[in-house]
Amino acid sequence: MNIGFIGAGKVGTAFGKYLSNNHFSVKGYYSRSKKSAERAADFTGSNAYCNINDLTQHSDIIFITTNDDEISRVCKMLINGDLLTQGQILVHMSGASSSRILEGAKERGCFIYSLHPLQAFADIGKAVEDLHHTVFSIEGDCEKIHVLQEILESTGNKYFNISSDQKSIYHAAACVVSNYLVTLMDYGLSLFEAIGINNHDGFKALYPLIEGSLKNIASLGTKEALTGPIARGDVKTIEGHIEAIGDIFLKELDFYKLMGSMTLDLAKSGKLNDRNKAEKMEEILGDRIKIGEKISLPE
Amino acid sequence: MNIGFIGAGKVGTAFGKYLSNNHFSVKGYYSRSKKSAERAADFTGSNAYCNINDLTQHSDIIFITTNDDEISRVCKMLINGDLLTQGQILVHMSGASSSRILEGAKERGCFIYSLHPLQAFADIGKAVEDLHHTVFSIEGDCEKIHVLQEILESTGNKYFNISSDQKSIYHAAACVVSNYLVTLMDYGLSLFEAIGINNHDGFKALYPLIEGSLKNIASLGTKEALTGPIARGDVKTIEGHIEAIGDIFLKELDFYKLMGSMTLDLAKSGKLNDRNKAEKMEEILGDRIKIGEKISLPE
Repeated sequence: MNIGFIGAGKVGTAFGKYLSNNHFSVKGYYSRSKKSAERAADFTGSNAYCNINDLTQHSDIIFITTNDDEISRVCKMLINGDLLTQGQILVHMSGASSSRILEGAKERGCFIYSLHPLQAFADIGKAVEDLHHTVFSIEGDCEKIHVLQEILESTGNKYFNISSDQKSIYHAAACVVSNYLVTLMDYGLSLFEAIGINNHDGFKALYPLIEGSLKNIASLGTKEALTGPIARGDVKTIEGHIEAIGDIFLKELDFYKLMGSMTLDLAKSGKLNDRNKAEKMEEILGDRIKIGEKISLPE
Repeated sequence: MNIGFIGAGKVGTAFGKYLSNNHFSVKGYYSRSKKSAERAADFTGSNAYCNINDLTQHSDIIFITTNDDEISRVCKMLINGDLLTQGQILVHMSGASSSRILEGAKERGCFIYSLHPLQAFADIGKAVEDLHHTVFSIEGDCEKIHVLQEILESTGNKYFNISSDQKSIYHAAACVVSNYLVTLMDYGLSLFEAIGINNHDGFKALYPLIEGSLKNIASLGTKEALTGPIARGDVKTIEGHIEAIGDIFLKELDFYKLMGSMTLDLAKSGKLNDRNKAEKMEEILGDRIKIGEKISLPE
């Protein structure tokens, strides 16, 4: 099967290289920028196409690896330009959208998919390496899904089969653990900053604790990985935190308490068996909505 | 200066070993359990004391490394038993409390401190190794604080000087980035679980994203490390998340939105300069307090 890429950015180039390293027939790249297509073609030992029609004619599988915003537009262009052939496989690699954004191509007899790597790609070289231990999600038409599955099986990559409906939840989970993680760290570092520890030194100093928690989650699961005052039912310590945070920034207290309530729920489902302590903890963490209409957030 | 430990658990034993490896004179251990004291003494090449008085008489610096709950009690016992000598240095290693829980000892002419390692200690052997790259906090009496500072300088450990008042904020920050981290991951994994991906496989698959975010925070800081739909102002994707999460568990939506609001604030202070997109994002993330008195949380 011949594979072509429309869009010669980081993901398309790295994945093309990865496929060609794994002896798949990568035909080449088309890109709005001729230079990008040439760079990707050089890197993967394939062709740079000046004409999108040449690429689609030579490809059994077409990956649309443009910016997320461009994918539907490219798909429409392929349809309107009559550039698709019955039986072709159309794939995009965006996490945010399902295969449905390629729907129009089905009327041309194509099969549509999204194939998403759970990876934060830095530079292209590192990305190709990282692909070895990257888990993917696949969703799309039943008929030829085995083609994509077999590609990942032959490269040794694990994958989740999900439905189009599940793609948003899947993507939300990925955003929660990576983007919201930055927010949580920012909050912790802002507390350090309030006592004169700068973010850079603070993060370095806190890193072993972060690493320790992640290791524990990996080996024990979240319920058993939870340690600290809430898991222990140490009401006094949490009271101390609330008082101290309230003293310096009243606005951030709600976030502390909400996260604390969520943590208490996790603790109660795992380590914290003392009902008395759990109730007391709930009392001090629970009175967080006194603020009127909207939780006030740090500025 | 001779150093003695009351409490022969993981932290006391590991830190004693670390000090003795660094050529400090660790005299030995007292513990309620004779066995523990002997084990720690063996491990550190020091003495196990059956009598607490023998330990305090032989120590210029006394570390109280019992469970957090026991520290004040041990301190009172030392005072009431008249076991302290003028000029002795009393130190505990709890993160949650300041040196003030040792206050009574000041009347006996002692100097009081808390010395806290930002580390998640697993087993003792690994803990001794980990201490090399652990950052500490020190707070307590001015007069002899240089003694503890000089110890950490000679072992090559960085430390933060904080005041007793700041200890709670310091500890809250440590709990936020390590304990609340577990809660955040649990939430992300619960979304995966909702689409049939178990926690173990899910966490392994998501790990590269988590690692990527942490690396970016370390090198770029939180504002620049934030990526994803909120940083891009991708309103459609966030609407999709909200709809999808609302469909499967309405209760968890508030947490998604609150974290989203916090993330939006971070994005606005950094990457998200498009006011129009920011305002739209605020609209969809902001209507989170419609629930009455209390935010409902997942069960």
